[in-house]
Amino acid sequence: MIKVTVWNENRHEKKNPVVRDLYPEGIHGKIAGFLKNADYEVKTATLDEAEHGLTEEVLHNTDVLIWWGHIAHDEVSDEIVKRVQQRVLDGMGLIVLHSGHFSKIFKVLMGTSCDLKWREADEKERLWVVDPSHPIADGIGEYIELEKEEMYGEHFDIPTPDELIFTSWFEGGEIFRSGCTFKRGNGKIFYFRPGHETYPTYENEQIQRVIVNGVKWAQPADRKRPVYGNAQPLEKISEKSL
Amino acid sequence: MIKVTVWNENRHEKKNPVVRDLYPEGIHGKIAGFLKNADYEVKTATLDEAEHGLTEEVLHNTDVLIWWGHIAHDEVSDEIVKRVQQRVLDGMGLIVLHSGHFSKIFKVLMGTSCDLKWREADEKERLWVVDPSHPIADGIGEYIELEKEEMYGEHFDIPTPDELIFTSWFEGGEIFRSGCTFKRGNGKIFYFRPGHETYPTYENEQIQRVIVNGVKWAQPADRKRPVYGNAQPLEKISEKSL
Amino acid sequence: MIKVTVWNENRHEKKNPVVRDLYPEGIHGKIAGFLKNADYEVKTATLDEAEHGLTEEVLHNTDVLIWWGHIAHDEVSDEIVKRVQQRVLDGMGLIVLHSGHFSKIFKVLMGTSCDLKWREADEKERLWVVDPSHPIADGIGEYIELEKEEMYGEHFDIPTPDELIFTSWFEGGEIFRSGCTFKRGNGKIFYFRPGHETYPTYENEQIQRVIVNGVKWAQPADRKRPVYGNAQPLEKISEKSL
Amino acid sequence: MIKVTVWNENRHEKKNPVVRDLYPEGIHGKIAGFLKNADYEVKTATLDEAEHGLTEEVLHNTDVLIWWGHIAHDEVSDEIVKRVQQRVLDGMGLIVLHSGHFSKIFKVLMGTSCDLKWREADEKERLWVVDPSHPIADGIGEYIELEKEEMYGEHFDIPTPDELIFTSWFEGGEIFRSGCTFKRGNGKIFYFRPGHETYPTYENEQIQRVIVNGVKWAQPADRKRPVYGNAQPLEKISEKSL
Repeated sequence: MIKVTVWNENRHEKKNPVVRDLYPEGIHGKIAGFLKNADYEVKTATLDEAEHGLTEEVLHNTDVLIWWGHIAHDEVSDEIVKRVQQRVLDGMGLIVLHSGHFSKIFKVLMGTSCDLKWREADEKERLWVVDPSHPIADGIGEYIELEKEEMYGEHFDIPTPDELIFTSWFEGGEIFRSGCTFKRGNGKIFYFRPGHETYPTYENEQIQRVIVNGVKWAQPADRKRPVYGNAQPLEKISEKSL
Repeated sequence: MIKVTVWNENRHEKKNPVVRDLYPEGIHGKIAGFLKNADYEVKTATLDEAEHGLTEEVLHNTDVLIWWGHIAHDEVSDEIVKRVQQRVLDGMGLIVLHSGHFSKIFKVLMGTSCDLKWREADEKERLWVVDPSHPIADGIGEYIELEKEEMYGEHFDIPTPDELIFTSWFEGGEIFRSGCTFKRGNGKIFYFRPGHETYPTYENEQIQRVIVNGVKWAQPADRKRPVYGNAQPLEKISEKSL
Repeated sequence: MIKVTVWNENRHEKKNPVVRDLYPEGIHGKIAGFLKNADYEVKTATLDEAEHGLTEEVLHNTDVLIWWGHIAHDEVSDEIVKRVQQRVLDGMGLIVLHSGHFSKIFKVLMGTSCDLKWREADEKERLWVVDPSHPIADGIGEYIELEKEEMYGEHFDIPTPDELIFTSWFEGGEIFRSGCTFKRGNGKIFYFRPGHETYPTYENEQIQRVIVNGVKWAQPADRKRPVYGNAQPLEKISEKSL
Repeated sequence: MIKVTVWNENRHEKKNPVVRDLYPEGIHGKIAGFLKNADYEVKTATLDEAEHGLTEEVLHNTDVLIWWGHIAHDEVSDEIVKRVQQRVLDGMGLIVLHSGHFSKIFKVLMGTSCDLKWREADEKERLWVVDPSHPIADGIGEYIELEKEEMYGEHFDIPTPDELIFTSWFEGGEIFRSGCTFKRGNGKIFYFRPGHETYPTYENEQIQRVIVNGVKWAQPADRKRPVYGNAQPLEKISEKSL
């Protein structure tokens, strides 16, 4: 059984009644709920817990970590970021949602600014599937339509994704690479754009399906970390005079 | 349960006692055997059957097709090649083994010559894992070593693979991209190099494991083929005077 | 000096006065014009010439071939298609424009149906640059806007492009991967979407700039075709008892 | 004229007479020499200069930065690393050589450990061209052979390269992805493996040619950095009741 930890900064929920009404158990509670229904073993962790809820033990027992953050990226300690990065290199899957594009962990793993255009204008988003063979698009139609979402527009300052699964159309005239995968070490990363806190995006069954599929895809392969450092030859090396 | 069809031209087995001794049930029989042990639903098909054993019905009931061919590529009818290509675009997985690099179906799907360097000299091959996050490398160590294999060397005239999982070292001085994935339409393709008919390569448990993993990876996503052709607008298009 | 051949089926120009008025010298004449201004050595070739104007000699003296076709793809002979494919594998660059997505040569090089959604509705297209580092986007702003174009929508049934440079937003609600590169053998391929025959798209200076950049990018590297076939070892292979 | 800055930590040259004999003007001096012969405008910078020789002004006047470091990676200040990273995102090309795989700047841009296997055993390296279409392989034969080099072996802990141009065969039994490109923001990065300080690798004309080609490939496109942040809509957004 795949072990998932859903991490949320859980701040909008405390400050903003609109968000609290939409997600009375927090965004992490909502996501944990539909992942449990998909038969994953799910826990949650939030910023204000000790070590942000991401102790060595928690991470060691996490196959796939889901990350939602927005207004408190800077409050995440650099030490925990390093710990999460190491776990990804060791094989843990990581799913970064929406405003998590600006989280320390995503920026550190990408090596770029991860910047983008944005706008809050109650506008329509249509996420087109551009890779119909991908398991993350399993069970999804040609596109997912969201009546109202925040706009994210290109250029999205990320490295070339290993795979591009969704590209969004926005009513206001922009497009965005909204479903992207990356590999880092033994670990797999999926960035998925939708999920602004003031919209009921995580109620949408197609969005839920994508995240459920993402967890399955991001689970670690059964492998040790490769051996690095000084290595003995596997074959005889000839003596050379020169 | 994933439905696999193992296709083999099955000619070396009839002509060459060395091959028959190694694979008394044919290369297809050998591969079908270890795939059954992995709990797949497995059938076989060979060149000399009617329609090469690849009727519309067989292909329709195949999730993943495995292809082994060598000396009789030209005897595969163009009509069957088109049929298999269409099934791949519709979502069927395809695993092309060893000398299948020169099969009509692989060449048609790649668009290139698929040519390479080769040599039969009982030489050592070491397949290094270069993508430790990939599910096809699940359970495999840092490399797989084969005491004797045919050499295939670069340049391998294929399009840039979507993913490169294995790269081979050969005793005689060459390297080769020996585990490559490609996507075509709704379908996923895995090319895996080892498996010359005069060596017991498919007895090797690590090689078996890679093929078992490959089948799981290549299974179709649950999706219809996208809708193509003339499309009505999803949004209102403004009238333009110009 | 880079030698360019602009190929056009040149049929709309003969039948449709709208097209003839827009492109009195043919689409090929228009494209050849701005490429000459960019200091390339430019020739043209059209469907109704002997061997479609693509003799062995012409192709041998072409560094980059530009392809525009639409209503007469089937009239291009299979022999010429094979000849062009071989030249691409040998190193010639190929730029496929707009409806050329359905040309025999593009389909053969891709291995897929190359199908898509389409609509003629005088709608706005906005091509966003998603790879700002790419030389094909040199001198281009954040996007190119075309007041009226034919719509092409996803899913575009091509292999995963090696590079994705432009993605289009369409007024009617679709998006499209509109600037894609591919490698085949020693040759480089650039597909660029815009250019419907009833719009003055090739008058647009930004579109011209992209095609000028594309030619420079697609020029052959100074290399011979790799050596394929049976190869002598470069290192001593040990004797094996087993 | 492309402006190149060759950066070297320049420490082995001071401490080790073998290195000083091989490269009396330093590794940077050697590289600067053959780049000047290729008609680039070339300067050098070293670790012990003020700001490591990489002032804002120097970087602003650099199109392509070449990086050689080994034993003093930790002495490079984090501030300068950030400055170089920002210049890469702004468009400057970066060529990282050999032991530069462990430099702070490369690790920050990759987001991974950049670790690998290594061995100093005077062994033969053969770099095979696996992408014959690439301009960085222009003028290079099927492979480059180096009689003696340090071995670097897989797994090389980098993100999937955007392009893989060379893969090395080593006498002792390993392989390595030895010529890799990456994009970060507006900038292009080329990692090239050879160049251990105790071997005359940078005397090799084929190695020189690859670096000369790399500079040309890595030069910035003529583009501003994209606009990021809050964005006004380009199209009218409909009022929504829901």
